[in-house]
Amino acid sequence: MTDTTIDQVDDLARAAARAFELTVRSSGAERAGWLRAVADRLDEHADELTRAGDHETALGDPRLRGEVTRTTGQLRLFADVVEEGGYLEAVIDHADPDATPPKPDLRRILRPIGPVAVFSASNFPFAFSIAGGDTASALAVGCPVIVKAHPGHPETSGLTAGLVASALADAGAPEGVFAMIEGFEAGLALVDHPAIQAVAFTGSVRGGRALHERAAARPAPIPFFGELGSINPVVITPGADAARGSALAEGLAGSFQLGNGQFCTKPGVVFVPRGSGVESRLPGLVGTSPHKMLTESIAAGFSRGLEHLRSVPGVTVVAGSGEAAGEEVAPVVLRVGAEQLREHASELFEEVFGPLTLLIEYGDEEEVLAALAELEGSLTATLHAQDGEARPELVAALERIAGRVLFAGWPTGVAVTWSQHHGGPWPATTSQHTSVGATAVRRFLRPIAYQDAPAAVLPPALQDDNPLRVPRRVDGVLQVPEASPVR
Amino acid sequence: MTDTTIDQVDDLARAAARAFELTVRSSGAERAGWLRAVADRLDEHADELTRAGDHETALGDPRLRGEVTRTTGQLRLFADVVEEGGYLEAVIDHADPDATPPKPDLRRILRPIGPVAVFSASNFPFAFSIAGGDTASALAVGCPVIVKAHPGHPETSGLTAGLVASALADAGAPEGVFAMIEGFEAGLALVDHPAIQAVAFTGSVRGGRALHERAAARPAPIPFFGELGSINPVVITPGADAARGSALAEGLAGSFQLGNGQFCTKPGVVFVPRGSGVESRLPGLVGTSPHKMLTESIAAGFSRGLEHLRSVPGVTVVAGSGEAAGEEVAPVVLRVGAEQLREHASELFEEVFGPLTLLIEYGDEEEVLAALAELEGSLTATLHAQDGEARPELVAALERIAGRVLFAGWPTGVAVTWSQHHGGPWPATTSQHTSVGATAVRRFLRPIAYQDAPAAVLPPALQDDNPLRVPRRVDGVLQVPEASPVR
Repeated sequence: MTDTTIDQVDDLARAAARAFELTVRSSGAERAGWLRAVADRLDEHADELTRAGDHETALGDPRLRGEVTRTTGQLRLFADVVEEGGYLEAVIDHADPDATPPKPDLRRILRPIGPVAVFSASNFPFAFSIAGGDTASALAVGCPVIVKAHPGHPETSGLTAGLVASALADAGAPEGVFAMIEGFEAGLALVDHPAIQAVAFTGSVRGGRALHERAAARPAPIPFFGELGSINPVVITPGADAARGSALAEGLAGSFQLGNGQFCTKPGVVFVPRGSGVESRLPGLVGTSPHKMLTESIAAGFSRGLEHLRSVPGVTVVAGSGEAAGEEVAPVVLRVGAEQLREHASELFEEVFGPLTLLIEYGDEEEVLAALAELEGSLTATLHAQDGEARPELVAALERIAGRVLFAGWPTGVAVTWSQHHGGPWPATTSQHTSVGATAVRRFLRPIAYQDAPAAVLPPALQDDNPLRVPRRVDGVLQVPEASPVR
Repeated sequence: MTDTTIDQVDDLARAAARAFELTVRSSGAERAGWLRAVADRLDEHADELTRAGDHETALGDPRLRGEVTRTTGQLRLFADVVEEGGYLEAVIDHADPDATPPKPDLRRILRPIGPVAVFSASNFPFAFSIAGGDTASALAVGCPVIVKAHPGHPETSGLTAGLVASALADAGAPEGVFAMIEGFEAGLALVDHPAIQAVAFTGSVRGGRALHERAAARPAPIPFFGELGSINPVVITPGADAARGSALAEGLAGSFQLGNGQFCTKPGVVFVPRGSGVESRLPGLVGTSPHKMLTESIAAGFSRGLEHLRSVPGVTVVAGSGEAAGEEVAPVVLRVGAEQLREHASELFEEVFGPLTLLIEYGDEEEVLAALAELEGSLTATLHAQDGEARPELVAALERIAGRVLFAGWPTGVAVTWSQHHGGPWPATTSQHTSVGATAVRRFLRPIAYQDAPAAVLPPALQDDNPLRVPRRVDGVLQVPEASPVR
């Protein structure tokens, strides 16, 4: 891997700005074509990509093969989204000369914000990397993308970038619409570059916070969409624990060990009733041998985090060992009594990235509510309850701290759909938008209103006859053209 | 005026957080009732409010009376918006157990973000102040509001706040849902308070920039929605100048002198063809006597800005004098040749708040395009052109720098409608959202997705039978219930 120079970053950002002059005028159908071409190209090379990814991340063939499929599915979803056109939020208010004061003809639409900087994650070498959701959603709406590769998988990044670039060129996308850079300093230069209009970042709280403040301190500040850290609390009620302790133990064991615990949605703390049947079943379900982590520094961070947790009074090991050997670590389940939260909440609620989960034994729901009030924002919160146990106070406490609230299943596994929301209060994300699912495009759009514009000047979606048949709000009433289901 | 103490700010913010526990569960219909009660109460006291406003701002009875009407109309628009329910962006994807991997039942909706801090503007003592658009849009979606009063109109602010608070209480809104504070330090403490989840600010670039960085540097950063500065360029083509120079001169004279030029949408620079008929007609249309400005510091800033512009080589006075006397200033029109932009663009494009506009004489369209490329973001950009003159390059250049592009009329006057967008690239605003019109509510909302939730737990808008009859996207298809036009 060779770091991109500051001059090269400047050249690429200028090329992206030139490309934007064309993409800003491109149609949703054109861009859908670009995305599908990229998806097809990646699918054709799935074997090669999977091999490269496994070589660098040790995440394993099945997981990585599935991730390539998820990545290409994601590209195709965004193609559908921009073809359907609802994302444009088109609004038309016809003139009302008799109003006081008279109202002009005013038409609003969302337009692409400009070139976007994307920072890849280490833990999803495809779905949150070079051709991941951030890249797909930005390209989908007409924003050129410059991706900073994650140093944890340079070969996979380079391979993917080559495929993306060639597929885009073959599909007729303008030159400069996509590029990859490498290196820490190059990433900072990208965030600072005047041509860049938004940043999407998936990574650590510390790195994200620094970039967030840097984006706000630019001569012309730009939005920073960071997906940073998440503890993903799970609450198991006494009823659920009694009724299906065995299934819950299996589900939890599978979820926190998936991908060796290297998911931003890994359940990090689990509230279980004292004497829990889940807890007693875990020892047989937790692996004993160490597995290779994504990077050395992630392995080291895991061991430091485990050490830190074990230094809190009352914390004991329930299952596994957490043993480390070089880049490898073994899974571990810890437990602590909820009473320790009174003095040690901040240590116990620190995210440990990797195969570790902390059971917190509680006596009654009041203890759970008090603990949830101490938690920072998370991507997810999960409640396993029997009928009647999902009381409004409990659900409200989970909603307050999370972007997705689950009532069955486990938070790992993020469906890429119209309804998904992958975001949450700080430090889960820095924004009120999602980084997964159809509405992720909203991050890279800004409204423009046209006042008394001649028809020839208006974007097609705002022309009276609605040639693209997009959903629109006209004079206050939302209208869906008959032929508008997803094409 | 007495500054609110830091302890009082803390009490009010805590009360707002307690109120949020109730407002987060309130229905759109309830909140619509609160907003309409506030609107009715303000309308009943329109005489008193207008008198107080004129006493403090010298903006005059007709303008202020109209502004009270605009303010109450705004409150009623947001009542309509939340009753209609489209703003919730409700999305339902039913489970698909046969998909690979199986898809859960997932339902997304927008929920209120939490207590909001609002900073009032000096120049709209009603529409962008205590009960202005920021307050209305935050309350509409269930966010308690604490407003920092502008020191330019404390009496008007106190009077309005008393009416708002009593109307909300009478309408059954929870205690703590609305409060007003005063003082610079109190404002800072409000932005820092952990209970506050978003900030809406209308004011200077300098003040806004400081608060923007402060919001990003909090232990838990929050979004900052700033509406800061705007030069609002106008381009008059040779054809338009020749065909209707007289009408354009009258329109420009009216627009830049309106409210003594104290509008964020005041046209600050006007590109006119060399030998323009607009320019020659202006002298008779510009007032000669000084008028009172909103505050002493605004009057002083105007004189400094005028001095600064006049020091640029080639700048001359076309009409008026810009003469200042204490808090009073007289209107002025300046001119300069476009060739001066090569060396002096940053000085010539500095916003001067008050009754001043700068004509920039150009030779050909290339000069205009080069000049527009130097301009920072604006709330508006206006093109006066004859048929065939609105070339795509010119329109694209205007779109690039503005949130609203006008093809007739003048940028002062902002219709409060579903389609309005009052925002733009930095420094016009700091966000991709608007501060005027129906979609202003989006600033104070965040998505939540519910996965496999029991019906009893779901917000009504996400329940299968759609009891509130809100527009929703179900399994990818946007659906508008038959009885859903604005009620």
